[in-house]
Amino acid sequence: ANNFFLLAGPCAIEGEEMALRIAEKVVKLTDELKIPYVFKGSFKKANRSRIDSFTGIGDEKALKILQKVSTTFDVPTVTDIHEVEDAAKAAAYVDVLQIPAFLVRQTDLVVAAAQTGKVVNLKKGQFMSPESMQHAVKKVTDSGNDKAWITDRGTMFGYQDMIVDFRGVPTMKQYAPVVLDVTHSLQQPNQSSGVTGGRPEMIETLCRAGIATGVNGLFMETHFDPANAKSDGANMLDLSLLEGLLTRLVRLRETVINL
Amino acid sequence: ANNFFLLAGPCAIEGEEMALRIAEKVVKLTDELKIPYVFKGSFKKANRSRIDSFTGIGDEKALKILQKVSTTFDVPTVTDIHEVEDAAKAAAYVDVLQIPAFLVRQTDLVVAAAQTGKVVNLKKGQFMSPESMQHAVKKVTDSGNDKAWITDRGTMFGYQDMIVDFRGVPTMKQYAPVVLDVTHSLQQPNQSSGVTGGRPEMIETLCRAGIATGVNGLFMETHFDPANAKSDGANMLDLSLLEGLLTRLVRLRETVINL
Amino acid sequence: ANNFFLLAGPCAIEGEEMALRIAEKVVKLTDELKIPYVFKGSFKKANRSRIDSFTGIGDEKALKILQKVSTTFDVPTVTDIHEVEDAAKAAAYVDVLQIPAFLVRQTDLVVAAAQTGKVVNLKKGQFMSPESMQHAVKKVTDSGNDKAWITDRGTMFGYQDMIVDFRGVPTMKQYAPVVLDVTHSLQQPNQSSGVTGGRPEMIETLCRAGIATGVNGLFMETHFDPANAKSDGANMLDLSLLEGLLTRLVRLRETVINL
Amino acid sequence: ANNFFLLAGPCAIEGEEMALRIAEKVVKLTDELKIPYVFKGSFKKANRSRIDSFTGIGDEKALKILQKVSTTFDVPTVTDIHEVEDAAKAAAYVDVLQIPAFLVRQTDLVVAAAQTGKVVNLKKGQFMSPESMQHAVKKVTDSGNDKAWITDRGTMFGYQDMIVDFRGVPTMKQYAPVVLDVTHSLQQPNQSSGVTGGRPEMIETLCRAGIATGVNGLFMETHFDPANAKSDGANMLDLSLLEGLLTRLVRLRETVINL
Repeated sequence: ANNFFLLAGPCAIEGEEMALRIAEKVVKLTDELKIPYVFKGSFKKANRSRIDSFTGIGDEKALKILQKVSTTFDVPTVTDIHEVEDAAKAAAYVDVLQIPAFLVRQTDLVVAAAQTGKVVNLKKGQFMSPESMQHAVKKVTDSGNDKAWITDRGTMFGYQDMIVDFRGVPTMKQYAPVVLDVTHSLQQPNQSSGVTGGRPEMIETLCRAGIATGVNGLFMETHFDPANAKSDGANMLDLSLLEGLLTRLVRLRETVINL
Repeated sequence: ANNFFLLAGPCAIEGEEMALRIAEKVVKLTDELKIPYVFKGSFKKANRSRIDSFTGIGDEKALKILQKVSTTFDVPTVTDIHEVEDAAKAAAYVDVLQIPAFLVRQTDLVVAAAQTGKVVNLKKGQFMSPESMQHAVKKVTDSGNDKAWITDRGTMFGYQDMIVDFRGVPTMKQYAPVVLDVTHSLQQPNQSSGVTGGRPEMIETLCRAGIATGVNGLFMETHFDPANAKSDGANMLDLSLLEGLLTRLVRLRETVINL
Repeated sequence: ANNFFLLAGPCAIEGEEMALRIAEKVVKLTDELKIPYVFKGSFKKANRSRIDSFTGIGDEKALKILQKVSTTFDVPTVTDIHEVEDAAKAAAYVDVLQIPAFLVRQTDLVVAAAQTGKVVNLKKGQFMSPESMQHAVKKVTDSGNDKAWITDRGTMFGYQDMIVDFRGVPTMKQYAPVVLDVTHSLQQPNQSSGVTGGRPEMIETLCRAGIATGVNGLFMETHFDPANAKSDGANMLDLSLLEGLLTRLVRLRETVINL
Repeated sequence: ANNFFLLAGPCAIEGEEMALRIAEKVVKLTDELKIPYVFKGSFKKANRSRIDSFTGIGDEKALKILQKVSTTFDVPTVTDIHEVEDAAKAAAYVDVLQIPAFLVRQTDLVVAAAQTGKVVNLKKGQFMSPESMQHAVKKVTDSGNDKAWITDRGTMFGYQDMIVDFRGVPTMKQYAPVVLDVTHSLQQPNQSSGVTGGRPEMIETLCRAGIATGVNGLFMETHFDPANAKSDGANMLDLSLLEGLLTRLVRLRETVINL
C-alpha cells in the first residue's frame, strides 16, 4: 500500500507487438514487487525538433493498442495529449492524460483534460519553478477534477543539459502527488544533430534520490532495444535492467516511508 | 530601405478603441521615422499561469479588430496562434502568424501556419539554443513556405529571470531574419504571485544591443497605460516613451548598417 | 565501518565557549550513532560580500580553539584556508585543510595544502562541473598527497539560487571521496542586502538525496542559535534538530549500502 | 575625450620580445584611433584548471617587462594579482591592479589592492550578479581609494558556456566605470580536456553590444599567433583583425555617445 507507483513503457507506440511485449515484462515485474503500474505510451509525437523525426503510426491505431494493453494485462494506461480535441479522443481509451512539459501553460488544453474526469498528469515545464506548478494544478481543480499529478522531467541548465532540483519534491507534494520522470530528466537537448542525447547511466542515481526525497511515483521510458527505438533511444532504460533497479528501489522505499 | 522593422502593439486586443488608439500613435511615429511597421495584438491568451488571468474578448471579435487596424492604417498585422485550427482562422485576417515560444516545437502547429502561405514568426523557446531554431525554420521551408522569421524573447536563467544571448543574433540570421522581442525578454517569470514581473527600465539597453548586433526587427509590447493593461503590464513600454526610443534607435541603425 | 562521516560545526569560530558547546553536543550524538565526526570551524572568513561582515576573532586564537576541541573530545578538525601561508599555519592545529569553492582553481593554494600531508578537502566551485574536479584532485595527488576529498556545495542556478546536481556524486566518486555540503548548497546568494539567504527547511531533503546517491560524507553548519550566529545564520541547522536528522540518515545509509 | 578605453594584450607575459611586439602594434592603432590604451599582461597564471598548464616566466621578470612596455611606449599597464603580497609587488611596476573573477570576494586581496592607491579593476565573478558588484566596489572606496573599475567577463550558463548579461552595463555603471572583457566572456569552460575553449568568431558581436549599451572600456586578449599562445589561445583575438574591429567600434561609439 505504501509503495511508489510506476509509469513506464516505450516512448512512442510503434506497434502492437512491441507494446504488448514491453507491457508483459513490466507487468510481471511490478506484480512480483507489488508496485502499482501504469503502462505509458505516446500515441503521437508532436513536438520533435526535426520534421523528419518519427511522429507515430496513426492516432486511432495507437490508442487502440493502449486499450489492448490495458485489457490484456488489467493495468491502467497513460498517454500524452497535444491539442484540445485530443483530450476526449484519448480519454475514450486511457486512464491518465498527460500534459507535455512544453504545453503545461496552455490553459485550454489543461482544462480540456481535466473535464474528461481522468487523472491529469501535469509535466513541469523545463522553464518552470516547482512553486509555479501550483497554478497548473489549480486549473485542474478549478475544472472540478481533483485528480492531478505533477511529473518533474528536469529543468533547463544551459542550452544542452537538464538538472533535477530535488527541493521541488517536497514543494510540489504540497499541491499534488509527485512523479519523477527519470529518463527525460537525463536528456541532453539542443544537440547540433537536432536529436536529443541522454545519460542513461545516471538513471539509478536519479531514481534513488527521488525515492529518498519522497516522490510518489517514478516515470521511465524503457524498451527491449533502446538503440533501435524510433524516438528517445538515447535516454531509455534497457528493459533487461529494470528488475534489478526496481528491486533495489522497493527496498529503499520501504526504509524511507518508515523513517 | 535599410531600416529595422518594428512589431509593436498591446499584449492582448482588449477592444477596438484601444487597438486603434495605439495603432494610430505608432503608425504616425513609424511613418515619420521610415520604420516598416507591423501592428501586433493577441486575439487570445492561451498560456497564462493562472486560470483567472485575462484570456481575451472573443476570437472573431479580436481578429476583426486586427483587420480593422490593418485597413484603417494600411499596415500589416501579426497575431499568435495556439492550435492547428487557429492557423487558417487567423490567416483570414492577419499577415503574420506567430508561433509562441512554448509551442515552437509543436510540428503540427508550425506546419499549419506555414501552409497558410503567411509569414511565420517563430519565437525561440526559452529552453532552446539559437542553433536549434534552424530545425523550426526547416519545418516552415519544408512546408513550401520561405517566409519564416525568428524572434528571440530571452532564455531561461534560473527560475525567476530571463537573459538575452546576443551571440544568437548572428547565429540565427543564418537561418532567417531575426527579431528581438525586447519586452518579453525582460520578464521575470515564476513569481510567487503567479503574475509575471518585468524590468521595463532595461528596454532601451536591450534595443541598443539588438540593433548593434544586427537584428532585422524589434518587437515590443506597448500601451498608453501599462499599469492598467489586462496582461503583461509589468514589462510593456509606455507609449509616451516610444518616440524618443525609436528616434535614437534609427540613428544607431544607420551607423550600424554602414560599419 | 560503513557509515557516512560528518563534518559539522559553526560557520566561524566565534569563541572558545561556543565551539566547545557545539562540539560536545555533536560528539555525543555521533558517538551514539557511530558516525565518524570531524569538527568544522573557520578560523577567519575572507570572502564576505561586504567589508563590514564578521571576519573572525584572530587567526591564532581561533586555531588554538580548534586544537582545544580536538584534544578535549578526541576528534579531528577541519578549517578552510585562503592564502598559501595559511596552509602550514593551519596544518599545525587541524587535521583537514579545506579549499573554499571560490579558490579551488588557485594552484598555489591547493599545492600548499597538499604539501602539508593533511587531508585536503576541495570544495567544488559553484561554477565548475563535477567532471572538472578531477583536475583539482590531480593537483593534490601530483603533489604527493593521496588524501583528497571533494565537497559539493551546490552549483550556480541564476543569480540568486543554487542547485545540487546529484549526477555529480557518482561522477566525482571516481576521483575521491565525496561530501555533500548541505547547508551551503541551500544558500540564496546575491541578495540585494549583500547578506546571503538560505532555505534551511530543505536540509533533510538534500541530506536524504545525498545518502541515497552514495555520498561518503555530509557537511553542515550548525549552531545552537542560528539567528544570532555571526555569519551564515540563514542556512545553518539548528543544533536541536541534529539528533532526529542524523538518526534517520543512519537508517537510510544502512539500507543504501546494502542495496 | 569621449572614446572608450581599451585594455588589451596577451594573456600571459611569455617574454619581452612578444610583449613589445604586441604593444607596439596596439599602441600604433590606438594612437591613430584616439583610444586611451592600457597594456594588459598577466605576470603569473595562478588559477589554471590543470597543474601542467603554463603558469609564467617568473614574477619579477614578467613585471619588469610590463614596466618596460610602459616606459617604451608611454602607456599605462594592468596586471592581475592573486595574493595579498602581490598587491604591493605589482604596484611597483604597473598602473592598474586587476582582481580575478574567482577572487573578487576575497576581502583581504581587494583591500590590499586598494591600499596601493592604484586603479583597482574588479572582475565580476562568473557567479555574481551585476548588483552584487556594488559590495566589491565599496571595499575599495572604504579603503580610501576611489579608483575602482568593474570588468564583466561573462556569467556561468550551464557547465560549459558563459553568457553576457547586458542589463549589467547600466546597473554596474551606477557603481564604477564598466569594462567588457570580450574574450573571456566567450570562454567555454569545463571542457573534458581541462583546457578552456572559446568562440572568437563572436568577438565583434559582443564588442558592438557593449559599446551600444554604454561600456566605458573594452578588454580583450590578443596575440599575433593565438594558436601558439601559451594560455587562452582558444578565445584570443588575432592581432591582425584588431584594426578593422577598432575602427568600426570607434564609429559606433561616436554615434552612441551622441544619442
